Amino acid sequence: MKKLSLRIVIARSIGQWAVAAIAAAACMSAVHVAAAAETPATAQPTKKPLTTADVLAASTPADWRQIDPQNTIYMDLPSGRVIIELAPQFAPHYVANVEALARQGYFNGLWVERVQDNYVAQWGDPDAKKPVGNAQRSVAAEFERTSRGLSFMPLAEPDTYAPEVGFSDGFPTALDPKLGRAWLIHCYGMVGAGRDNDVDSGGGTELYAVIGHAPRHLDRNVTLLGKVVQGIELLSSLPRGTGAMGFYEKPEQRVTIKSFKLASEVPEAQRTPLEELRTDTQTFTDYIDARRNRHEEWFKVPAGHVDVCNVPIPVRARALATGH
Amino acid sequence: MKKLSLRIVIARSIGQWAVAAIAAAACMSAVHVAAAAETPATAQPTKKPLTTADVLAASTPADWRQIDPQNTIYMDLPSGRVIIELAPQFAPHYVANVEALARQGYFNGLWVERVQDNYVAQWGDPDAKKPVGNAQRSVAAEFERTSRGLSFMPLAEPDTYAPEVGFSDGFPTALDPKLGRAWLIHCYGMVGAGRDNDVDSGGGTELYAVIGHAPRHLDRNVTLLGKVVQGIELLSSLPRGTGAMGFYEKPEQRVTIKSFKLASEVPEAQRTPLEELRTDTQTFTDYIDARRNRHEEWFKVPAGHVDVCNVPIPVRARALATGH
Repeated sequence: MKKLSLRIVIARSIGQWAVAAIAAAACMSAVHVAAAAETPATAQPTKKPLTTADVLAASTPADWRQIDPQNTIYMDLPSGRVIIELAPQFAPHYVANVEALARQGYFNGLWVERVQDNYVAQWGDPDAKKPVGNAQRSVAAEFERTSRGLSFMPLAEPDTYAPEVGFSDGFPTALDPKLGRAWLIHCYGMVGAGRDNDVDSGGGTELYAVIGHAPRHLDRNVTLLGKVVQGIELLSSLPRGTGAMGFYEKPEQRVTIKSFKLASEVPEAQRTPLEELRTDTQTFTDYIDARRNRHEEWFKVPAGHVDVCNVPIPVRARALATGH
Repeated sequence: MKKLSLRIVIARSIGQWAVAAIAAAACMSAVHVAAAAETPATAQPTKKPLTTADVLAASTPADWRQIDPQNTIYMDLPSGRVIIELAPQFAPHYVANVEALARQGYFNGLWVERVQDNYVAQWGDPDAKKPVGNAQRSVAAEFERTSRGLSFMPLAEPDTYAPEVGFSDGFPTALDPKLGRAWLIHCYGMVGAGRDNDVDSGGGTELYAVIGHAPRHLDRNVTLLGKVVQGIELLSSLPRGTGAMGFYEKPEQRVTIKSFKLASEVPEAQRTPLEELRTDTQTFTDYIDARRNRHEEWFKVPAGHVDVCNVPIPVRARALATGH
């Protein structure tokens, strides 16, 4: 297994980062000791540059937040579970509607019906006929919100699309300080509600996840309401549809949704408890710095910058409380 | 098929854009006529805002360039053909080496061995043992080149990573005018040469294609040598590897490369002739404008900007000359 190349560890898979952290730490200490020995006595000791693995290895339990089951959707496909964290702080009415749809089993037995390469995977009812019961078929657009009261960790670098970008409660967020408005960003894995030409025609009966390079031109044109925190690869690796816009041309190509439920309504033994690195912590700031300038031995030219959509936020299995 | 949502046509699939162009043109003319009737007599007639489909429909044969078979690789997988255009203007020695490897059938029977979600698909010899014949096992890094003599169509907008970004001969390119250096950008579909920690340890015996959000931190850290112009979905839809960094854990999970050849060495009847929109034309400038501010009816808030990696460059089947 020589010449593996691109020896970059992205802390995405649960558990994987811990192993990487140990390996990287071992490697980096040797380098650091050597460098320290050459430092002139008058020089200030320089802080050891941290890798993302180092940062995560040094994190404390307080750096992590539970992903709230009340706010989590499990979409079970034949290949496994896609876990979506909802963002009611950005799209309260859409989230409430998706929850109402989930509660009555609206998506159960429907399909992933569209997979367009480098763009989106979309699921719902291609005929838009299934009754929505006590949910709404459409909800007024929630493209943006006031920035007031929003926890926001800004990035220092310029963004091509928005005056400011950063993270809010784990979600990639854009902000216009002049207008006092904030909105979610179409990064990889973000989940939104499809709509027709009318801005208020969406509602959550059709949902999509981004599976390619961030289609930022969709920002503020569609209501984003959550993000995939685990299992995005079950959507991104599906065969691409050959119809217009990536729709599957034959019904038998569609992927059936076994169930689409709120995590809080699934028996505890069947849940997948997760926690995510908090984005309002010093640890996350350090993690961003380590992404900005990679200190793993493989990297030669540090980027010096980081794109808001090039920061996979670490998610890991949550240790359950023991005892009673 | 109501409520399709996201009625966005990305001109990627061959032939598809032409159909879309006609549909969009028909739709837009009606809108335009109505708007014109309401224009006060004193107002200047405004130019009809063009959609990407409009721009492509109005293109002339001179706006397109043949993708040179001398410069093209066909990687045939069991699922179909991946077509790679090489970039000798950026990585002359790597390209020459990949061509030498292709000529002697180095990749035939090797595998796609790694598919890491939102990152890369990589192919080659996981054991790095297959003889390379008259090719080289490693080639000195070609991370960047002089910007002198480079055709460059700059984008006006700020980029998070580089002083200037734009397009050179169809390739997404970054430029540092102060240093007079230019380099290829890790956009979706770009192809690079894996390496070990030593900068000069790559050579093209291990290749990868980007299948996720642009990993720009790899820019100037790996030699990019081409881009996938057709068939990237055959790589991006492969099952993700479950080993570290997305490597397939079991040999039987690997995807066998049936053949990896220079297009010019394939009999003409078996070729896939393609042409790409030239990036040094007014039509491409108009296309970029239409991506910046989408005028399709579905869009409500024009982005006003465009990311260099959010510009899929149109590729279409090339009409062959008839007669003799």
